[in-house]
Amino acid sequence: MSLPPIRTQVGIVGAGPAGLMLSHLLHLQGIDSVVLECRTREDVEGTIRAGILEQNTVDLMIATGVGDRLLAEGHRHTGTQIRFAGEGRRVDFEGLTGRAVTVYPQHEVLIDLIARRLADGGDIRFGVSDVEVHEHTGDRPFITFVDSDGQAQRLDSELVAGCDGSRTGTRHLIPEPEVRTDYFRQYPFVWFGILAEAPRTSDELIYAHSPRGFSLCSTRSETVQRHYLQVSVDDTVDDWSDDRIWDELHRRVDGPGVEVKEGAIFSKSILPFRSFVCEPMQSGRLFLAGDAAHTVPPTGAKGMNLALADVWVLADAMVGFFTAGDRRALDGYSSAVLPRVWRAQHFSWWMSTMLHTAPDASPFDIKRQEAELDVVTSSQAGLTLIAENYTGLPLPQLVHAVS
Amino acid sequence: MSLPPIRTQVGIVGAGPAGLMLSHLLHLQGIDSVVLECRTREDVEGTIRAGILEQNTVDLMIATGVGDRLLAEGHRHTGTQIRFAGEGRRVDFEGLTGRAVTVYPQHEVLIDLIARRLADGGDIRFGVSDVEVHEHTGDRPFITFVDSDGQAQRLDSELVAGCDGSRTGTRHLIPEPEVRTDYFRQYPFVWFGILAEAPRTSDELIYAHSPRGFSLCSTRSETVQRHYLQVSVDDTVDDWSDDRIWDELHRRVDGPGVEVKEGAIFSKSILPFRSFVCEPMQSGRLFLAGDAAHTVPPTGAKGMNLALADVWVLADAMVGFFTAGDRRALDGYSSAVLPRVWRAQHFSWWMSTMLHTAPDASPFDIKRQEAELDVVTSSQAGLTLIAENYTGLPLPQLVHAVS
Repeated sequence: MSLPPIRTQVGIVGAGPAGLMLSHLLHLQGIDSVVLECRTREDVEGTIRAGILEQNTVDLMIATGVGDRLLAEGHRHTGTQIRFAGEGRRVDFEGLTGRAVTVYPQHEVLIDLIARRLADGGDIRFGVSDVEVHEHTGDRPFITFVDSDGQAQRLDSELVAGCDGSRTGTRHLIPEPEVRTDYFRQYPFVWFGILAEAPRTSDELIYAHSPRGFSLCSTRSETVQRHYLQVSVDDTVDDWSDDRIWDELHRRVDGPGVEVKEGAIFSKSILPFRSFVCEPMQSGRLFLAGDAAHTVPPTGAKGMNLALADVWVLADAMVGFFTAGDRRALDGYSSAVLPRVWRAQHFSWWMSTMLHTAPDASPFDIKRQEAELDVVTSSQAGLTLIAENYTGLPLPQLVHAVS
Repeated sequence: MSLPPIRTQVGIVGAGPAGLMLSHLLHLQGIDSVVLECRTREDVEGTIRAGILEQNTVDLMIATGVGDRLLAEGHRHTGTQIRFAGEGRRVDFEGLTGRAVTVYPQHEVLIDLIARRLADGGDIRFGVSDVEVHEHTGDRPFITFVDSDGQAQRLDSELVAGCDGSRTGTRHLIPEPEVRTDYFRQYPFVWFGILAEAPRTSDELIYAHSPRGFSLCSTRSETVQRHYLQVSVDDTVDDWSDDRIWDELHRRVDGPGVEVKEGAIFSKSILPFRSFVCEPMQSGRLFLAGDAAHTVPPTGAKGMNLALADVWVLADAMVGFFTAGDRRALDGYSSAVLPRVWRAQHFSWWMSTMLHTAPDASPFDIKRQEAELDVVTSSQAGLTLIAENYTGLPLPQLVHAVS
């Protein structure tokens, strides 16, 4: 026996950063939404994820009332270190741009957004399955799903947001290649990531280029560190013993004044390395946001930031639709966000190719790349170009400017 | 019957920008040299070549008394235009860096240097053949050659400079790979260059990216223009009729406010596109400078500028050797100039890859590249990074500082 349909204004598929922030922004403008999430709340909140928040993201969190814990517990990084040829060069984000980034893991952002949505009476359905969006090209789209009690449900809404991440189902509702064009790049390397109970190697992140490959020393807390090593696409977790990991980190990162600090490794994983964009990010009454529409390699730390920038624009467009009956901003959503998505794709590609060692690099390529690092990091202009992209390019102009 | 050996302090192979400027700089410090050149003076002075002089080169020409005609007849360009996606963005060299470039063709530089050397009693032997450098690893190197009268000659000197361009013989005296390492990159496109009797298309150079390929509109004078088209490596001059050339230039360059101005084409040629560096640039008493040691693709306009920077450092080192008996700067010549050579290699590669359309570019690559042009040219920092490299990075520090 089927239940009566749930009704809302916006059906949101996915309780990641994009879906939750969209629901929050809509609520602040008096618009109802329901968020459907296949994972459990415990899983969403408990999956440890990286998180480098650009200045725009920090500002958005604070401005919309979900920045208290971020301000208390996040670590503001006013610069970072780029190492190559045995020496380090600092990128002084704050001195160069007046802006900074904040290290605050993605799952903490999700915890804050979930808590706030629930406190505001928000409707998030965790642990659902068989989510299917129907009739998004018509005027009355609806979503069917099975709730966490195993009950078949139907959600009627006027608009649907596909915020279901890189394993998205919603993207595939936009037919490719007839309507949707996919742009994809696979990189010839992957990251091997570890979590270790160890002291911080440095107060700031270290991006280290070496002929042996790239490494990133980052941090989760005073006592938990997150380090990455560029490894071969064929490598598996079993190829990397703890000793080999630390030895390799020392070889790639150590130098005058810097020594990687060791500790007990409690997590090892392989991270894929790819770039993806689909265009357009919308069809009829379905609008994609975040990883459902685009993926960046992690070097530029842009993933979550792009997701939140998307929904900042999308929420504004939806508000225009509901409050003024004006579909223009909705129609222009893709065109409004895609140029900045591509700028972030370029920055992520640039950081990746400038810092990694391509397995097929010729001796010329290697010397040219070291010269690039030298040209860019010995120039105020070069450092500024990194800093302004890393801390976040300006957000798109809002049409309704309600956020 | 053989003639008695000619004696000098520095034997210089090649009367291009490097060899002539070296001879001139040495003369200013009271050091004798003889320049051997296989081509005739008429050929050297009459071969029309491009010439964009970075600020360092202009300053060097003026400071050493060979800048009068350059100042009178050269065209100072305080900026350039980068075009893509149908619009132009100006790189304001002067506003961004306080520096500029001067369009003054290479053969005019050669005319000025030859005139000055001859006026100063300099010894330049044109039209020689069979030039061979001997015993450069010993204390008494010498060069044998056949002079323009067909007489076998011998030139005894204490030092030898290999300034014989990219078809160098002197480079090959440094055994590879035992002593010399060559770094090489071939690009997957070439330039098709024309000279045309036509008005200037624009007051400043136009670097135009288009999905159809790169184009450069440059100039020789009010009435003679030099334009380049990126073409396939398999193309020949016969593939390009005048009509096809102008049609393609219009398609790639024209846009609001810009239309390529046509005229009678009187020269067509294919220019190779490659990067090359050899390390070290010296062995024993032989020192390479300019294209004999390194080649850049033309996009960055760095070739002649690098040659003059090399000999600016080399002359200083030679002066230290002859006047103070100090070989240290000579021994360190390669290490002193190579970092800046590599920075210029990077810049030339960057301009080339950012502006050309790679034949194997994926749809992602093309969109990423357009985003790069957008990121770089919409940022003061990005424009400055181009401007400071284009107008010339600082020259290496001199050890003896006599120039």
